[in-house]
Amino acid sequence: MTLTGHSLIAGQHVAGKGTTAFGYNPATNAQLEPAYSLLTEEQLKAATNAAAEAYPSFSILEPETHAGFLESIADNIEAIGDELIIRASQETGLPEARLQGERSRTIGQLRLFAGVVRQGDFRGVRIDPAVPDRSPLPRADIRQRQIPLGPVAVFGASNFPLAFSTAGGDTASALAAGCPVVFKAHNAHPGTSEFVGQAIAKAVRDHGLHPGVFSLIYGPGSSIGQALVADPAVKAVGFTGSQRAGIALMQTAAARPEPIPVYAEMSSLNPVFVFPGALSGSAEKIDALAQQYVTAVTGSSGQLCTSPGLLFAPAGEAGDKLVAAVGRAVSAQAGQTMLTEGIAASWNSGAVALGSSDHVAVVGHGTEGGTKNAPAPAIFGTDIRSFVSNPVLHAEIFGAASLMIRYKTAQELIEATNRMEGQLTASLQLTEEDYPAASRLLPALEQKVGRIIVNGWPTGVEVGHAMVHGGPFPATSDPRTTSVGTLAINRFLRPVAYQNLPQELLPTPLQDANPWQLNRRIDGRVESGKVFA
Amino acid sequence: MTLTGHSLIAGQHVAGKGTTAFGYNPATNAQLEPAYSLLTEEQLKAATNAAAEAYPSFSILEPETHAGFLESIADNIEAIGDELIIRASQETGLPEARLQGERSRTIGQLRLFAGVVRQGDFRGVRIDPAVPDRSPLPRADIRQRQIPLGPVAVFGASNFPLAFSTAGGDTASALAAGCPVVFKAHNAHPGTSEFVGQAIAKAVRDHGLHPGVFSLIYGPGSSIGQALVADPAVKAVGFTGSQRAGIALMQTAAARPEPIPVYAEMSSLNPVFVFPGALSGSAEKIDALAQQYVTAVTGSSGQLCTSPGLLFAPAGEAGDKLVAAVGRAVSAQAGQTMLTEGIAASWNSGAVALGSSDHVAVVGHGTEGGTKNAPAPAIFGTDIRSFVSNPVLHAEIFGAASLMIRYKTAQELIEATNRMEGQLTASLQLTEEDYPAASRLLPALEQKVGRIIVNGWPTGVEVGHAMVHGGPFPATSDPRTTSVGTLAINRFLRPVAYQNLPQELLPTPLQDANPWQLNRRIDGRVESGKVFA
Repeated sequence: MTLTGHSLIAGQHVAGKGTTAFGYNPATNAQLEPAYSLLTEEQLKAATNAAAEAYPSFSILEPETHAGFLESIADNIEAIGDELIIRASQETGLPEARLQGERSRTIGQLRLFAGVVRQGDFRGVRIDPAVPDRSPLPRADIRQRQIPLGPVAVFGASNFPLAFSTAGGDTASALAAGCPVVFKAHNAHPGTSEFVGQAIAKAVRDHGLHPGVFSLIYGPGSSIGQALVADPAVKAVGFTGSQRAGIALMQTAAARPEPIPVYAEMSSLNPVFVFPGALSGSAEKIDALAQQYVTAVTGSSGQLCTSPGLLFAPAGEAGDKLVAAVGRAVSAQAGQTMLTEGIAASWNSGAVALGSSDHVAVVGHGTEGGTKNAPAPAIFGTDIRSFVSNPVLHAEIFGAASLMIRYKTAQELIEATNRMEGQLTASLQLTEEDYPAASRLLPALEQKVGRIIVNGWPTGVEVGHAMVHGGPFPATSDPRTTSVGTLAINRFLRPVAYQNLPQELLPTPLQDANPWQLNRRIDGRVESGKVFA
Repeated sequence: MTLTGHSLIAGQHVAGKGTTAFGYNPATNAQLEPAYSLLTEEQLKAATNAAAEAYPSFSILEPETHAGFLESIADNIEAIGDELIIRASQETGLPEARLQGERSRTIGQLRLFAGVVRQGDFRGVRIDPAVPDRSPLPRADIRQRQIPLGPVAVFGASNFPLAFSTAGGDTASALAAGCPVVFKAHNAHPGTSEFVGQAIAKAVRDHGLHPGVFSLIYGPGSSIGQALVADPAVKAVGFTGSQRAGIALMQTAAARPEPIPVYAEMSSLNPVFVFPGALSGSAEKIDALAQQYVTAVTGSSGQLCTSPGLLFAPAGEAGDKLVAAVGRAVSAQAGQTMLTEGIAASWNSGAVALGSSDHVAVVGHGTEGGTKNAPAPAIFGTDIRSFVSNPVLHAEIFGAASLMIRYKTAQELIEATNRMEGQLTASLQLTEEDYPAASRLLPALEQKVGRIIVNGWPTGVEVGHAMVHGGPFPATSDPRTTSVGTLAINRFLRPVAYQNLPQELLPTPLQDANPWQLNRRIDGRVESGKVFA
C-alpha cells in the first residue's frame, strides 16, 4: 500500500489546501515521509456533505450486507500485514508486540459488531398491538425501533493508533449503528491512519456502498475539529483524548443551533484499593503484588486510559513492605518511548509538580530509556490526609507515574472516594477477610466509576458485551454509556414510533412477517425472532 | 385532605421564607386559597440533600417493595377523589372530564412502571462469563447492570397538572429507575401539586422508605429552577415547558462543574400531511376529516404538546373543499378557558403575528368563550412557498390555532419537511393510492420527528412500551429518548461493569443464583430468568 499524504474523502484522495504536517518517530524525533497536506475548513464540507448523502441508503442496509461490510474492514486491515505494524511503531514508539495485540483487538471488535448487526437486538423493536375493543378508547397499533442518529464525527486517539483510531471502537460502533463516519486523524500517526482509512474505503467500494459512508480527514489540530463538530450535517461525536480538548468539543456541540451528543473519554486516575488481607501471608505475595502494580503503571509507557494512577495501601508493617517492594520493582524499569515529544514534556511537568508537592515523597523511580522521549518511570507516596486536601494530587499524569497513598481505616477509603472526581475504573485487592470493608466501599465506588475490578488490574479492557469503559464526568462527557464493548452502539441510535402504519409503509424491522427474524418486545415482553400475526 | 400552602420536604411541611404566590382560576381570574409560601435557594438544599441521603437505600430497593411503592402512589391519588379533580379544574380551567382522563393516565402509568420494576429488564444485566483457558490471555468474568443516576429534578408542566406534573411521567420513570425526586411545582396549579405530593409522601411513609425519596417544592419562577438544576446533588433533569425555559435549563446543566443530562420536552408543530387519496370520494369524508382536524386543534383549548399546528392540504378542488369545510367546522367552535392569563395573552400575540404575515389568510375562526381567557380558535391558510421561506410561520402558537398549507406536489412536502425543525410527531392522512408518495416522505420525516401516525391524529399519547414522545431538537433537548412510555426509564440509568467480583460482593441482580429471576444477556444473547451456574 502506498501512502499518499492526502485526505480520503468519500473514496477520493484529496490534497489539502492548508499547511502540511509530518509524522515523527518519537524514539529519534526524526521526521517521517510523506508530508500530509491539511484540509481547510471549506474543504471539510465535502466530507460532511458526502456523509449526509450516504445516510439514507447506509442507515437502512440489510443486515447481511451491513455485517459483511464490517467484516471486510477487518479482513482488509489484516491484509495490510506487517507494513501497518511497522509504520505504527515508527509513528508511536509503541513496541510491535503491543501493536499486534492492538490490531487483533481492532479486528476483533469489528467482527464482534458484525455479530451484533446480524443478531439485531440493537434495533430495539417494540410492538404494542392494537386493541380495537378497549374501553373507553381503542388502542392504536404502535411500533418502535431505533434508527441511526446520522453522520458521526470520530477523533483518533494518540495512545491507540489502531483500536481507538481510524477503525477503532468509535468508528466500529457508529458504522454498526448505521451512521456514516467522518474520521479526523490524530496528527501523531498520519500514516497508520491512512493505511486503515484505505482499508475502510476499499470495503465501502467492494460492497457497493455510497462512498460518503467513510471519510478520513487531516487538518490542523483543534480548528478543524471544532469546525467538524459545529457542522450541521454531523449528529454525534466520538472522542478520546485530553480533558481540555474534550470539554472544548462539548462546549462547541452544546452551542450549536441544534445541540448534539458528544461521547468524550477524557481522563482517569483508576484508583487501586489494597485491603489488608491482600498483604497478609508470604513476602512473595507482597512482591508479586508490587510487580503487578509496576507493570500496570509502566506498560505502554503508562499511556493507557486505565493505567493505575493511584494506589491506596494500608499503614503499618505490611504496607511498608509493599512500598519497599514497589520501590525495588520500579527501580528495575527502564523508560519506554512515549508517543510524542509533547506528551513526554507534559509527563515531565506533571511528575515534577507531583514530586514537589507537600507531603509527597519518591517511592522509587526507574532509569531513562535508551531512546528519545523515554523518561524514567516514577512512583510517589503520600498519606491520605494530604491526598484528600490537595487537588494537585488528583491531577492525571499521562504516562508512567503513580501515587501510593497510605491509609489507616476503611472509612478513610470511603471518604477519599467521595472526594474524587469521576473515573473509568476502580480496582480492589483483597481476600475474604476484607469482604465486609469492601462491601461498604462498593456503593461509593459505583457513584464514581464505570468498572470495578477485584484482584485484577484495570489495564487490558476486554471488548465484550458486558464491558463498560466509561464513567462519571470528567472521566467521560456522558456516564450513560461506554466507548468499549457492544453497548457502545446505543450511543448512535434514537427511537422512532410508528402508529397505525400499514404493512406496506412499515420499516422492515417492524413488519409483521419479521423478515430479519428479530427478537421483539411485544406488549413489554421480549419474544424471540417470531413472525407476528 | 387539607392544603397547607407549604413545600413538602422529605415528608415535612416547610414554610417558605420567600414571597408568597397564589393559584388563580383562569375562568374568572379569581385568586384561590391558600397562599403558597415560596422557598429561598438556601431552603432548597434541605430537599436536595435529603434526596442524596435517600439514594443509597432507594437505589437498591428490592423489586416487590419498589413496585408496591409505585402502586401505592397510584392508589393514594385515586383515594383523593373528586377533591383533586375539582381543584385541578379550578386552577387550570380544564374540564373535569379531561382531568378525569388525565388522572386515569397518571395512575395507569404508575402501575405500568410498577410492572416494569417487577419485570426487571431495565436493569440491563449482561454477563460475559470467564474463559480461563482462552489464548493468548484468559478472559475475566465481567458483568454489567444499569444503576440509577442519582437524585432527579422534575419540573411540573402547566398543561398537564396531573400526567406531567407531581406524579407524572418524569416522576414515575425516575422513581421506577430508583432515583429520588425533587419536584418543582408549576405555580399555575399549586394546590393540585400539593394534593398529589401528599399522596406520594404517604406512600413513602407507608413503605418505610427514606423520606428524602420525594420532595415537593414551591419557589419563585425560574430562579429556584436554575438553582435546583445547578445543585451538585442533582444528577438529571426532567422538564416539560417552553423552549426558552428549557434551553435555559440546558445551559445551566452544561455549565455545571459536573454537567448533567436534561430531558426537556419543549415545543412542536406536529405537521399533518393530507395526501390526495384522503380527499377522494364523498363530501362526507372531507367534512369528517375537517371536523377531526378542528377537534384536534381545539381540544383542551389547543394546549397539548401534540396539537397539530400545521396541516398540508393539496391544491385543487378537493383541497379547496377541505379548506371550506375546516372554515365551517372552526366557526362552530367556542373558545375554551386557557390555563393562565399569561398563556392566553401569548396565544393572542402569536395568532396576531401569524394572521398578519404576508400571504397568510384566515380560513376560519370560532367565537370567544363565555369565560375569561377563552379566545376564539383560529385556523389560518397559506401556500407552501410562503411557508418554506418565512420563519414566522414555523413558530409554535401554544393554543387553539393552526395553519393550513396548500401544496402541489409530493416533492414539495419533502422539501418543506427538510426545512422544518425537530418535532414530536408527524401525521399522514392517506389511502392506498398515496403509499408511493408517502413512502418517499417517510425517511425525511424520520429525521425530524419521534412519532409517525397514519390516518389518525397526534393528540392522545398512548402510554405503553412502544410509545415515543420525543424528537430532534428543539422538540426536545435530547432525541435519544422519550418522556412517555416505559422506555423513559432509561433516561435515569447508567451502566456499571463488575470484573471478577466474588458472589458475596456482587449486586443482587448479577449474582449467579439470579434471586430476582431477571432476563440476562449471557455472552450477547438474552436468556430468560435463569440461574447461571
